[in-house]
Amino acid sequence: MTNNILKFLFLLTIIHFTTIVKAQIDSDQQDKDAQYIKQIHNNILTEGMCYDWLTELTTDVGARLAGSEGSVKGVQFMEDLMNTLGFDKVWKQECKVNYWDRGDIEEVYLTYPKIQKLNALSLGNMIGTNGQLLEADILEVTSLDEVETLGNELVKGKIVFYNRPMDPTQIRTFNAYGGAVDQRVYGASKAAEYGAVAVLVRSMTTRQDDIPHTGTSVYAEGIKQIPAISISTNDANLLSDLLKKEKVRVSIRNNAKPMGERVSHSVIGEIKGSEFPNEIILVGGHLDSWDVGAGAHDDGAGCVHSLQVIKTLLDMGYQPKHTIRCVMFQNEENGLAGGREYARISNENGEYHLAALESDSGGFVPRGFSFDGHAEVLKPFYRHVSQWLPLLESYGLQFSTGGSGADISPLKSQKGLLIGLRPDSQRYFDYHHTDIDRIEAVNKRELELGAAAMTSLIYLIDKYGLK
Amino acid sequence: MTNNILKFLFLLTIIHFTTIVKAQIDSDQQDKDAQYIKQIHNNILTEGMCYDWLTELTTDVGARLAGSEGSVKGVQFMEDLMNTLGFDKVWKQECKVNYWDRGDIEEVYLTYPKIQKLNALSLGNMIGTNGQLLEADILEVTSLDEVETLGNELVKGKIVFYNRPMDPTQIRTFNAYGGAVDQRVYGASKAAEYGAVAVLVRSMTTRQDDIPHTGTSVYAEGIKQIPAISISTNDANLLSDLLKKEKVRVSIRNNAKPMGERVSHSVIGEIKGSEFPNEIILVGGHLDSWDVGAGAHDDGAGCVHSLQVIKTLLDMGYQPKHTIRCVMFQNEENGLAGGREYARISNENGEYHLAALESDSGGFVPRGFSFDGHAEVLKPFYRHVSQWLPLLESYGLQFSTGGSGADISPLKSQKGLLIGLRPDSQRYFDYHHTDIDRIEAVNKRELELGAAAMTSLIYLIDKYGLK
Repeated sequence: MTNNILKFLFLLTIIHFTTIVKAQIDSDQQDKDAQYIKQIHNNILTEGMCYDWLTELTTDVGARLAGSEGSVKGVQFMEDLMNTLGFDKVWKQECKVNYWDRGDIEEVYLTYPKIQKLNALSLGNMIGTNGQLLEADILEVTSLDEVETLGNELVKGKIVFYNRPMDPTQIRTFNAYGGAVDQRVYGASKAAEYGAVAVLVRSMTTRQDDIPHTGTSVYAEGIKQIPAISISTNDANLLSDLLKKEKVRVSIRNNAKPMGERVSHSVIGEIKGSEFPNEIILVGGHLDSWDVGAGAHDDGAGCVHSLQVIKTLLDMGYQPKHTIRCVMFQNEENGLAGGREYARISNENGEYHLAALESDSGGFVPRGFSFDGHAEVLKPFYRHVSQWLPLLESYGLQFSTGGSGADISPLKSQKGLLIGLRPDSQRYFDYHHTDIDRIEAVNKRELELGAAAMTSLIYLIDKYGLK
Repeated sequence: MTNNILKFLFLLTIIHFTTIVKAQIDSDQQDKDAQYIKQIHNNILTEGMCYDWLTELTTDVGARLAGSEGSVKGVQFMEDLMNTLGFDKVWKQECKVNYWDRGDIEEVYLTYPKIQKLNALSLGNMIGTNGQLLEADILEVTSLDEVETLGNELVKGKIVFYNRPMDPTQIRTFNAYGGAVDQRVYGASKAAEYGAVAVLVRSMTTRQDDIPHTGTSVYAEGIKQIPAISISTNDANLLSDLLKKEKVRVSIRNNAKPMGERVSHSVIGEIKGSEFPNEIILVGGHLDSWDVGAGAHDDGAGCVHSLQVIKTLLDMGYQPKHTIRCVMFQNEENGLAGGREYARISNENGEYHLAALESDSGGFVPRGFSFDGHAEVLKPFYRHVSQWLPLLESYGLQFSTGGSGADISPLKSQKGLLIGLRPDSQRYFDYHHTDIDRIEAVNKRELELGAAAMTSLIYLIDKYGLK
């Protein structure tokens, strides 16, 4: 054999040997990580506190619309609770929210061809009728575009009734929501543009039931503000069926109104990182909720998920390398003031969020994570995912690209990784923004598994970084 | 170039070309199958009848313990319904079941150190106290082995209290059930062997609540028969806490009893296969339930899942190549008479079941299928799975080895493929064998997605076979 061939074989042997050793280390490390992740799950499934905290938050505090008395109680509750959990530091971060009040009158009646009370909820941020009766003929449409097409002549003086259902064939219900919610958010101004006196909106759910769903709505600048009210899907079907035969009239009486700016707060807890104190890993949800129900799935679940991540890591004696910050954002539902203010101050302070993980899709069984970010963070992340996926898929978890969370989205400019917990979505819109979003709608094990999934991912990101 | 090299290159080109053509066909076929499976989902999520059928079965008929009046109504309901669905043939198959009656007295009281009524349910197939008061000291154990270890001296005259909880750290709750249910099934005879006068069994659930869970229990031959009653997990914890401090006494009064053999029926519908009429693909669940609640998840869900498979395939104009048989088995809960008799008659008639798919794990969101069978059917099935998985995993479905279903397990000797639907298991044991297993516990979309998953798999098996 020539010298070159010998050299080549020697080199080959070294490379081979190195590969084996590396594979061995990787495999040992994988085993250790698998054990750690099992311990995380065991800890939460046997000693998890998230369900108890959520019970307290939803029953002792209840609804927490930003700026309301409930939200003040919520902030206090959260600060007190976080002060017991072993954070290095807990603080409130001020933000200015636009408070909206539903008022004490909220009535929608079908008045012709028969009289029947409808199940209705005024939409967030919208004005009401000042307690006066407003009666008009109904005009059913299935899109904003249809209002334009019908034009002034047909729309003027009518109550426009947006009745395009969420598409039940979407397997992920958030996609169905995304495909229908423009009616609720922009429907009032579009109808007002053509002279409508009010709008009714079919509730955002695939269920057929009597439960109305509220939610945010916005007025376009320079357009007349008119009342906007959601009705239950059963009542929407009733109106639609009647309209196939004859004209239908409805009367509205409510006194909802925007109440102007108030001071509110996000609540933040922090554990300083031992190696990379200037690289922040954020985990959070939003503390505010709508003013009906108790914000159990939306988003009490995300708050207690995030607290459980911290409690479990500390219980297990885990020392984070990166700074871990737990943020209970204020005002996600009708303004995003907390999320915007958090990002503004963070940018002002020159901070860098390596990763931010939000839970704002309910306390259902976790199916995985969706992630988003700039190319420079995504490329190495894909490599990590190939290592981490085998550790997580035995818990039914997958990774997919997609949105992360509204509150953390203003952090995107810091070019870190943005992640959303993806719980199973089938039941989410049964409860979303309704009076029945209460603790009874939350299953303890499903909630706990969501917290365990989040804790596992935060552990992996903190341990391995994202480079 | 030599002739040989030319030949070689020519051959290479052919192989390559064939591979490309084959891949193209496969890819076209995959696209068509993906579209068909999407249509199946669309059909069921928009026009599915399974939830309506389950509502009728659980409210008009209600509980359906084999041999009870309810089960007679259930058989009639099912035969009538199946006669409307377009089967070539619907028939009842007789089986002999051992009917058990809960009786009209069922009381368990803590009598010392304080008096408190406990939430209790007599266990299936067990005798009661004949309406007489039976009072004794409690002896807590966590296993059948512990009864043996404690022996006659400590066990004699006592009420043995089996209190080993289901392991909450099992991610799949069926594994936790499997690890605890020996106490309920065999606990009475084991305790009687050492002179116990009765047994109490901690309910089979990971929840902490006041709801007792019944279930089957069996007496060993030649051992004295004693009463056996389940108590809620909250009450089990209460007894256990009290026992840490002092002796605890409990009184039992019930009049449950085995009532002897009765004639009952499974209900079967069949569509003859166009190409392989002698190869049967079975889809089924069990029609009987326990005598409390309404058997919504267990196993009304499995029955309506199976009917929906047939309805959807027929609605879509699908012509099955194999004979498709839909079987509503009788008496899964406390005897398996229907499943055994079905297999006996099938074997007697020289039938061959290519595949059998049972749904008996609830109407929750489907996570995939588990499968079982002899090596000669599993080997080609693995190859098919590699083709089918990409079609199903976008619906969150996976394949795993494991059990299939109790009713179809007697068919194993026919050497076909046995498959079980695997819905998410987190909430199953909240309802299993309880008074709250009613339609309110079932989510329409989750139920429908289970039916769509089953229809998709039956379609693939029928279209491609299992060779």
